[in-house]
Amino acid sequence: MLRLKFNQEGLIPVIAQDYRTGEIRMFAWANEEAIEKTLQTGYAHYYSRSRKSVWKKGETSGELQKVIEVRVDCDEDAVLYIIEQEKNRACHTGERNCFFRDPEGREAKRVLPFEALQRLQEIIRQRLEEMPEDSYTVRLYKEGEDRVLQKFGEEAIETLIALKRGIPEEIRAEVSDMFYHLILMLTIRGIGIEEVLQELASRMK
Amino acid sequence: MLRLKFNQEGLIPVIAQDYRTGEIRMFAWANEEAIEKTLQTGYAHYYSRSRKSVWKKGETSGELQKVIEVRVDCDEDAVLYIIEQEKNRACHTGERNCFFRDPEGREAKRVLPFEALQRLQEIIRQRLEEMPEDSYTVRLYKEGEDRVLQKFGEEAIETLIALKRGIPEEIRAEVSDMFYHLILMLTIRGIGIEEVLQELASRMK
Repeated sequence: MLRLKFNQEGLIPVIAQDYRTGEIRMFAWANEEAIEKTLQTGYAHYYSRSRKSVWKKGETSGELQKVIEVRVDCDEDAVLYIIEQEKNRACHTGERNCFFRDPEGREAKRVLPFEALQRLQEIIRQRLEEMPEDSYTVRLYKEGEDRVLQKFGEEAIETLIALKRGIPEEIRAEVSDMFYHLILMLTIRGIGIEEVLQELASRMK
Repeated sequence: MLRLKFNQEGLIPVIAQDYRTGEIRMFAWANEEAIEKTLQTGYAHYYSRSRKSVWKKGETSGELQKVIEVRVDCDEDAVLYIIEQEKNRACHTGERNCFFRDPEGREAKRVLPFEALQRLQEIIRQRLEEMPEDSYTVRLYKEGEDRVLQKFGEEAIETLIALKRGIPEEIRAEVSDMFYHLILMLTIRGIGIEEVLQELASRMK
């Protein structure tokens, strides 16, 4: 075990990053006991400086964090938990993560590139659950899976043509259209986009 | 401006996350001056506790961090810089980021789902630069762009068939193959996958 450098209060900073989306769910502190409990149980534990005790994230809220991997920084004075967030509201405010404002206090919820496919799938899942009638996703879904496949095929061919023509705006737009229809079809098949990305990642070992 | 909560030493923890890959490049501290300089200049500044002074990341190494966005956590006692990392070795050890070990001290470099497409493109770019003869990417590239487009088209059709058949392993494999050929072609066209993902993200506003 690396010798983690705890500060004078016996604490070390912990970043909790979502395995699926890459978003920083929260930032907190851990003492040695919290780190040990995390490693032993596979669920994120922290130390509360106000309550002066170790706590298991989600014990009351249900927002448990299953720990996929723990990483330590070069100086051994910061820790990264790579987690799967149960439910989807990691912040005590009810937000999906704690970093939802800019320094002016305004909402900072722009979707970042690395989370775009995953967040799109969340939206698609929500549409298919709530079935709002004015949604393109819902209308297409109701036309049946062969119609979704046909649209995916069309967008793949349009992507191919755009790639051949070589105009960047066109390429970005057509690939985006293809991604949308691909993710809709993956969702219908019950496959998370992160499962595909994990397969791709595993080939890069 | 939110009232950031600096600690007794006048410092606040800062997480630097890569805009493109989502990886945590580093964890460091800032004082009020460092935060102000970051906001004013658009480049990441931190406070060095050992040198007792504000520093601009990359000033000597060239590993500058262009700040795309600054976010503050719910308690106003932690800051997130969303950055574009110039060059690609953010850690002073020469690693691409500071979190490259597990608690046992072993290398922890598994590619995570959210960074898979971007890391794949980095590998493809490297192959096309170094042109190793035993590389599939290099051989395909040498057969010309129409051949790459043809392979992308084949893999898109195989993806469509796999989606129709509905076998998860097959779907994951075929989508991965399609992604690889798509990214090779995007690379040939000089387009970063993050530009496509950004386009997709912008539709989710």
